[in-house]
Amino acid sequence: MNSRPSEFKLIKKYFSPLAGEGSFGFNDDAAEIIPSPNKSLVITQDSLAEGVHFFSDDAPALIAKKALRVNLSDLAAKGAKAKYISLSLGLGKEWNENWVAQFAKGLGEDLKHFDVELTGGDTFMTGGGFILSITAIGEINKGSYVSRLGAKKGDLVYATGTIGDAALGLFTRQELIANIKSDDQDFLTKRYLLPEPRIEAARIINKYASSSMDLSDGFVGDLEKLCKASGVGALINLEEIPFSNAAGSVFQHDSKWLKSALTGGDDYEILFTTAPHNQQQVETELLNIQCGASLVGSIIESKNVSVMDGDGKAMTFDKTSYDHAGAKS
Amino acid sequence: MNSRPSEFKLIKKYFSPLAGEGSFGFNDDAAEIIPSPNKSLVITQDSLAEGVHFFSDDAPALIAKKALRVNLSDLAAKGAKAKYISLSLGLGKEWNENWVAQFAKGLGEDLKHFDVELTGGDTFMTGGGFILSITAIGEINKGSYVSRLGAKKGDLVYATGTIGDAALGLFTRQELIANIKSDDQDFLTKRYLLPEPRIEAARIINKYASSSMDLSDGFVGDLEKLCKASGVGALINLEEIPFSNAAGSVFQHDSKWLKSALTGGDDYEILFTTAPHNQQQVETELLNIQCGASLVGSIIESKNVSVMDGDGKAMTFDKTSYDHAGAKS
Repeated sequence: MNSRPSEFKLIKKYFSPLAGEGSFGFNDDAAEIIPSPNKSLVITQDSLAEGVHFFSDDAPALIAKKALRVNLSDLAAKGAKAKYISLSLGLGKEWNENWVAQFAKGLGEDLKHFDVELTGGDTFMTGGGFILSITAIGEINKGSYVSRLGAKKGDLVYATGTIGDAALGLFTRQELIANIKSDDQDFLTKRYLLPEPRIEAARIINKYASSSMDLSDGFVGDLEKLCKASGVGALINLEEIPFSNAAGSVFQHDSKWLKSALTGGDDYEILFTTAPHNQQQVETELLNIQCGASLVGSIIESKNVSVMDGDGKAMTFDKTSYDHAGAKS
Repeated sequence: MNSRPSEFKLIKKYFSPLAGEGSFGFNDDAAEIIPSPNKSLVITQDSLAEGVHFFSDDAPALIAKKALRVNLSDLAAKGAKAKYISLSLGLGKEWNENWVAQFAKGLGEDLKHFDVELTGGDTFMTGGGFILSITAIGEINKGSYVSRLGAKKGDLVYATGTIGDAALGLFTRQELIANIKSDDQDFLTKRYLLPEPRIEAARIINKYASSSMDLSDGFVGDLEKLCKASGVGALINLEEIPFSNAAGSVFQHDSKWLKSALTGGDDYEILFTTAPHNQQQVETELLNIQCGASLVGSIIESKNVSVMDGDGKAMTFDKTSYDHAGAKS
């Protein structure tokens, strides 16, 4: 399958079957979105570039899923239910029909899984590598938008799931981390390749969070961004930060990877804050979500972010973010 | 100015001043859109790639404006008032701060001119050339979406402005067309570099059009797409197709450019159809819009698109579309 059908045919064959209701089977240049009564929309856009955010030989279905999921993660962190996406598919020089077929298959599976509608977009030749840019739109109740800007002194800081797996997965894949069990290796690599957007946490965030963001560029650096936007600082207990067993094994092997786990990107977990009086309700509701969430520290007035180790000493980091992903606007 | 500030600083310095109301000065990962009562949203996404849709040495301000305007053109053709855009800015290997500064300046000017809000997006390194992907959202009254699918036998076919200028501008720039007056050359080149989205026509389209699309891949090919989507054909009179004086001069020089004008891309004019009983009202209202619009033919039952020349003979075309731009989904 190295033939190259026209882009028009590609769309007809692989993407029209994924078309949402308002998009006329992609027979139009645009699509209609009818907002639900009393809802606001939340819009976000994240792009992935070959050689920067994914490897040339990554499975196209996984690239599609990751491109979608990093956007769904942003919406979940805003407490929003994802509803629509638009896809700009920049085909790299090496594209062939099989690549597109696998990409569309993966995308279709995830659109169904997450109950999201594809409104349209465009397909074009980049002249270089593959570039995917997805714009995602979600819904919230009017007036319930949760930004990064609302953290207040005394608020509790929570993180969903486990931190650092994806960064360790990338290092494993790059063979910088070796001699670990193949189960652990598989787990960490999967966490890098196929993030799990914490959509189950969206409802809790919408209800209780004073501020929230998804972790994409590293736990410490992202927490710094949230604190900066809110005009506060944070005091974090290393011992409360949730790590997977696989990550634990890596740290046992060489403790230097702990700092990488705290500053590496691609977590796609959610960091949120809530007022102390919500603690019991939040923790009760968190029991019902599969990924769980951990109370990792609290918001302080001083504008620093400190991670205190088991000896009560503040950890130091050369860099608090992984910046391959570029900054978000 | 060949220094390269961090992307975070770039956004702060150049894009935060352009931030719309719902975007928290780009201190958040997403933005809130509060739909107006009784409105639907129209969403479209179009991307431009360096070396494919623009030249490496094009002025960054013009690239920004074109990236925005091709999307505003899509919205106008749907009868929608543009409200929001999200921008994915893929920086090419050769980026420097001055490029970004000029790009942001051009974008800011046009956002103001067209009264459109920037909600956010992302910035990243492509590893290759520059890639801009803009998602644009407009508003229409609920239930008034105008697609490509509604043209009916007997409907009248209108085109705004003048056809073929941008394609001739590109050929002029590529020095394929020579020996024309410098005024004509400037006019045609400008039509290629800086399209004028026909936003003034949106209201008329919204009110009267049975189908509509913007012309981006060539007049004949795009009309074929509209007819295919509507399950009809069209009979067009060459003598009624609106051409600029500059295009007329090119045809006089060598009549072969006429076919290029009819099948070249980048017009960003609007092609729309309306029922015959609307003719008088439509034409009265068209008198009030600066770009004007011409009645170029009518919709027929037979599924062919024919352009009849002055001798009543159907023109033939090797290719009806310019496909550099890629297909739209």
